[in-house]
Amino acid sequence: MAGNSFGEIFRISTFGESHGVALGVIIDGCPAGLSIDTSFIQSELDRRKPGQSAIVTQRKEADEFEILSGIFEGVTQGTPIAIIIRNEDQKSKDYEHIKDSFRPSHADFTYQEKYGTRDYRGGGRSSARETAARVAAAAIAKQFLKYYNIDVQAYVSKVGDIALTQDYSTLDLTKTEDNIVRCPDAATANKMIELIKAVKKDGDTIGGCVSCVIKGVPIGLGEPVFDKLHADLGKAMLSINASKGFEYGSGFAGTSLRGSQHNDIFYNDKGVIKTKTNFSGGIQGGISNGMDIYFTVAFKSIATIMQEQSSVDKDGNEVSVTGRGRHDPCVLPRAVPIVEAMAALVIADHLLRSKLSKL
Amino acid sequence: MAGNSFGEIFRISTFGESHGVALGVIIDGCPAGLSIDTSFIQSELDRRKPGQSAIVTQRKEADEFEILSGIFEGVTQGTPIAIIIRNEDQKSKDYEHIKDSFRPSHADFTYQEKYGTRDYRGGGRSSARETAARVAAAAIAKQFLKYYNIDVQAYVSKVGDIALTQDYSTLDLTKTEDNIVRCPDAATANKMIELIKAVKKDGDTIGGCVSCVIKGVPIGLGEPVFDKLHADLGKAMLSINASKGFEYGSGFAGTSLRGSQHNDIFYNDKGVIKTKTNFSGGIQGGISNGMDIYFTVAFKSIATIMQEQSSVDKDGNEVSVTGRGRHDPCVLPRAVPIVEAMAALVIADHLLRSKLSKL
Amino acid sequence: MAGNSFGEIFRISTFGESHGVALGVIIDGCPAGLSIDTSFIQSELDRRKPGQSAIVTQRKEADEFEILSGIFEGVTQGTPIAIIIRNEDQKSKDYEHIKDSFRPSHADFTYQEKYGTRDYRGGGRSSARETAARVAAAAIAKQFLKYYNIDVQAYVSKVGDIALTQDYSTLDLTKTEDNIVRCPDAATANKMIELIKAVKKDGDTIGGCVSCVIKGVPIGLGEPVFDKLHADLGKAMLSINASKGFEYGSGFAGTSLRGSQHNDIFYNDKGVIKTKTNFSGGIQGGISNGMDIYFTVAFKSIATIMQEQSSVDKDGNEVSVTGRGRHDPCVLPRAVPIVEAMAALVIADHLLRSKLSKL
Amino acid sequence: MAGNSFGEIFRISTFGESHGVALGVIIDGCPAGLSIDTSFIQSELDRRKPGQSAIVTQRKEADEFEILSGIFEGVTQGTPIAIIIRNEDQKSKDYEHIKDSFRPSHADFTYQEKYGTRDYRGGGRSSARETAARVAAAAIAKQFLKYYNIDVQAYVSKVGDIALTQDYSTLDLTKTEDNIVRCPDAATANKMIELIKAVKKDGDTIGGCVSCVIKGVPIGLGEPVFDKLHADLGKAMLSINASKGFEYGSGFAGTSLRGSQHNDIFYNDKGVIKTKTNFSGGIQGGISNGMDIYFTVAFKSIATIMQEQSSVDKDGNEVSVTGRGRHDPCVLPRAVPIVEAMAALVIADHLLRSKLSKL
Repeated sequence: MAGNSFGEIFRISTFGESHGVALGVIIDGCPAGLSIDTSFIQSELDRRKPGQSAIVTQRKEADEFEILSGIFEGVTQGTPIAIIIRNEDQKSKDYEHIKDSFRPSHADFTYQEKYGTRDYRGGGRSSARETAARVAAAAIAKQFLKYYNIDVQAYVSKVGDIALTQDYSTLDLTKTEDNIVRCPDAATANKMIELIKAVKKDGDTIGGCVSCVIKGVPIGLGEPVFDKLHADLGKAMLSINASKGFEYGSGFAGTSLRGSQHNDIFYNDKGVIKTKTNFSGGIQGGISNGMDIYFTVAFKSIATIMQEQSSVDKDGNEVSVTGRGRHDPCVLPRAVPIVEAMAALVIADHLLRSKLSKL
Repeated sequence: MAGNSFGEIFRISTFGESHGVALGVIIDGCPAGLSIDTSFIQSELDRRKPGQSAIVTQRKEADEFEILSGIFEGVTQGTPIAIIIRNEDQKSKDYEHIKDSFRPSHADFTYQEKYGTRDYRGGGRSSARETAARVAAAAIAKQFLKYYNIDVQAYVSKVGDIALTQDYSTLDLTKTEDNIVRCPDAATANKMIELIKAVKKDGDTIGGCVSCVIKGVPIGLGEPVFDKLHADLGKAMLSINASKGFEYGSGFAGTSLRGSQHNDIFYNDKGVIKTKTNFSGGIQGGISNGMDIYFTVAFKSIATIMQEQSSVDKDGNEVSVTGRGRHDPCVLPRAVPIVEAMAALVIADHLLRSKLSKL
Repeated sequence: MAGNSFGEIFRISTFGESHGVALGVIIDGCPAGLSIDTSFIQSELDRRKPGQSAIVTQRKEADEFEILSGIFEGVTQGTPIAIIIRNEDQKSKDYEHIKDSFRPSHADFTYQEKYGTRDYRGGGRSSARETAARVAAAAIAKQFLKYYNIDVQAYVSKVGDIALTQDYSTLDLTKTEDNIVRCPDAATANKMIELIKAVKKDGDTIGGCVSCVIKGVPIGLGEPVFDKLHADLGKAMLSINASKGFEYGSGFAGTSLRGSQHNDIFYNDKGVIKTKTNFSGGIQGGISNGMDIYFTVAFKSIATIMQEQSSVDKDGNEVSVTGRGRHDPCVLPRAVPIVEAMAALVIADHLLRSKLSKL
Repeated sequence: MAGNSFGEIFRISTFGESHGVALGVIIDGCPAGLSIDTSFIQSELDRRKPGQSAIVTQRKEADEFEILSGIFEGVTQGTPIAIIIRNEDQKSKDYEHIKDSFRPSHADFTYQEKYGTRDYRGGGRSSARETAARVAAAAIAKQFLKYYNIDVQAYVSKVGDIALTQDYSTLDLTKTEDNIVRCPDAATANKMIELIKAVKKDGDTIGGCVSCVIKGVPIGLGEPVFDKLHADLGKAMLSINASKGFEYGSGFAGTSLRGSQHNDIFYNDKGVIKTKTNFSGGIQGGISNGMDIYFTVAFKSIATIMQEQSSVDKDGNEVSVTGRGRHDPCVLPRAVPIVEAMAALVIADHLLRSKLSKL
């Protein structure tokens, strides 16, 4: 009800503020009997953590996790899995200047108005640091999906005006982690990195897009009407900090096509029903059809910039604010594991839900 | 769980198949004491119903509704409001030819696989006819919002390649209903209508976009983290048949902007804190900030075309299918009230949720 | 949220007021592929309906139902099943005298205070007439359970001070429907009927208990911690009008026993693990263990009596109220199918939930 | 869905196994702006913790808690409040003998069957140790209720055959904590203590009842139909380990009364509408009427006894099991704060829900 939980059956609930004692997550509804590789949780957290490269924030968080429950002798017990990550490198003093002021395009103002109180340190609960808990939970979800041979891969497809123009199917996604911006095309990646460095030098920030491909999803995931698979994927992506849009399959560009161009023709591929094209993005009528699922998420530029900006304080007085502390010039590289995390959580949940469709 | 309900507090549950006995909806959680104008429910249904103009399907449904419960002496009782709409002009015979075949880019195949059974008549539960129930429910939600002076207005902003280029704030939205395509700019509307007629003549269909503006939303709606206001709006829109994407505020285009360009500067407008620009689309940190909320939804071309297409049947044999019956050449005009309906439902729900934020 | 839905996966939502247009229910989450005998729905409604014998209310309601959706060619489609029952023999004038007065031990006062408005006719939504919708829904649930060979049987075990003293296992439950009070022991049944007739002659009412036995429940139903199987059964029973208590297995009486007396000893019965005694009532740690589940529900005497009573009106003035219309002198006989209905709904829901426990 | 959460708006989710790393709870939906006395959390945990007197288990757990999130500068932020309690005095070796065997009337067998795996140490998730997390959460809920002047008090009303015979209203509940069995009547308390000591000497255990009174509940809490206030209280109580029954108001005994005896007559007490008697237990039609709410919960004797018992192992072989470790001879004294905890959580949740009933 208060918006801190996600999923119906494979359900996570996160907690924690950016500069509080700890972040954490409860994963409820993971079936019993799944062997868990805990080192994978750390490697996923490492992909998201700050300080990993020159183009992300230099805040230093080890992001070491502790599992408190739900796993016994390496195996899930069907009971809630609780994971916590203690906060360490907090520099709360960097935030005292905005204790009573509202940073432009941040959540300071809306939180203050909604709750009448606000943990201003590091953005409190509105900080993207919360997504570490999601990534930890999704490291369990990904292992659950692996059991079903489902694979989720995201990559940066656009930074500022520099965009990948290839179709996803022509990209070699195994190369995504080969560069610090996480774009599978090396040439484009270099241009993106240069742009981010230039933006950073200006004390500015820049937006872009993350695309994601999910392979191996069985037919039948997604519920008709409100919980269509792409609707839940869309909500999941739009719940990520700084997200501004979502499209799947042919997306916005596809709206210019006619039905005769856009329809995906079924054919029989050695006993398996497939479609010749995949404008549907692997989802028809809200339900997976066995083809690749793919989608793109838009992220705005990060609001904290190292430039002076005008704003107001709690009493409505005009003030000037300038970003302090250590911030990302571009959210995109670190958004990749977060997009994957949310996608994995949606698929895990719908995989379980799909077990209930028929006798 | 099975995806037929939407909303947490102001919650609707729809039922009914396209050619079944009736469609309907239960609205649960509407507060007691709201006076209801039942004629408004009919006028909203009339905006969505088939046969209303030359550019939509000629199927004839009066879409007359009956309220079964929850309203006594014209006032909501706090108990569930049930509304049904009986199906009338069904021509189920038009569908017997696809009883065992899968129409391209329809839900025939995925439903059959998911459930092992399928009401093939008129698309059954996957038909957009289901949205009549949403519109009826939203006619209650809109009256609830009117009580709080909140106003929801959608319009067609793109058909094929013909797009409105103006900012929403320069449009006169009172003119949306002046033409059959529901575009507030008369010149653009005419071009859209011509395009749809041409497409129809070809036995083809065409996609496009609907945009929506919500005015008067108080500060504080939306829950942080997963149930961000735009995330719930996004899911709502993506749950509409044929929807392919969602963006709010600066959307996909805004990802090219730098933070210094994109940040919305706060200022004090005679005691009210506002922002000078509104790239945020009225939502910051997932919570409404009192500015206009605006967003755009992408819709693909309708899958049923009056042309012969190749496909497969249940047994995997190659077959040929051609659309029969009466279908829309373009979903956009009728999508306008549906987009408004889903938006109204999201805002009504979050308005009630926001009452729980603080002591 | 507003309390009109029950169940997590096999989920029902009821609507309707006693003297409104119709009652109804949506059953969501019933798996596709279940063959439905619709005549069984009517026979279950007939067991609950008024006017069936000399010891129940003489209100005449045919309680004929109409299925609006979800079943196609006799088979569930995995889509919501909507059933409505129109109200017919309403004598709303019988209630005008209590339009502004509060009947003792009724919901008139609390509804008026909670909602600020009230459909006073026949008790509106607070009427036990609402349970017809539950019985209709459970007629689907029972057919789902029958598919798994699970059987639910309730009977009247106490009226006033006349109580069955036998253990449930010594009773022949096939005889429950042989008499109008629905007690499987003929001699006790006669005493109960005499008591109810005497009470009725006095214009009074009387309470009692219904017991219920569920056979064939597989091991593993019920979720640990909050959704223990007996906790959900208890809530289900306490949600029935006039219910005052619930106990299962050894119940209240068993609290006097020592652990050495009360523990149920496991043994191996030809490869099946059973317990020698069944004080646990078939549930251990909140989870079914394969033994019979049994429980008892307490019902108070009905509040509407044909005697003059003192009360107050909306303005706090003292008034006198006397029951009018046609009312039950004893809720017990008609409560039997309702107890069965709620039990069937709980078991159906947990049967589906249990599919999610392990890989 | 997996049964580890309770409440709709004021919602708790617990995690942790008896001998795992830690127990804990997330409290979601507590409104922002509530000042929290953290020392009260410890004092509530102390009332529940083992080792507090001669008649409870001698297991030593400090039950020291740590708040990880949600409270800033002593005030709730509207964000999730996470509390953990690390396990300390585990003697897991005491449980190795039952690794493959099923203790009678424990959850060993049902957990093993349900999940196919089981953390046997200390009962794992099925241990009543889980209730420490509930008590911690309820220490927040109680402070929320105190803000509204609502008070929850439980006490032991029966141990074995020794029962309080007085009406709750004649007891001085301030004396409940004056003795180690938590019975407000000193003479009865002494008899109860003697009985428990005798039972303990025999290596046996004994059951009994806890009663609870809630004062100050405003009119209008509870939702009609399924989420009646007493139905949710009943479920809450039945979710406590070893619980076997629940009754409220006149309960089971009241079923013998006639309507003319049982009806609670309304009267005007200086402008406040009250009832002369309170057989309704403060709840009519499922909604609080402003009178005291009172109820009683039945608890069976604890299953672990220090006597040899016959049982079976995983393979169905007959085995003998004898309780080891440190266990309670009687659950009642420590159940008192747990009953209060669950009652406080139900009332807090419905208090928030009641804000949504009318415009």
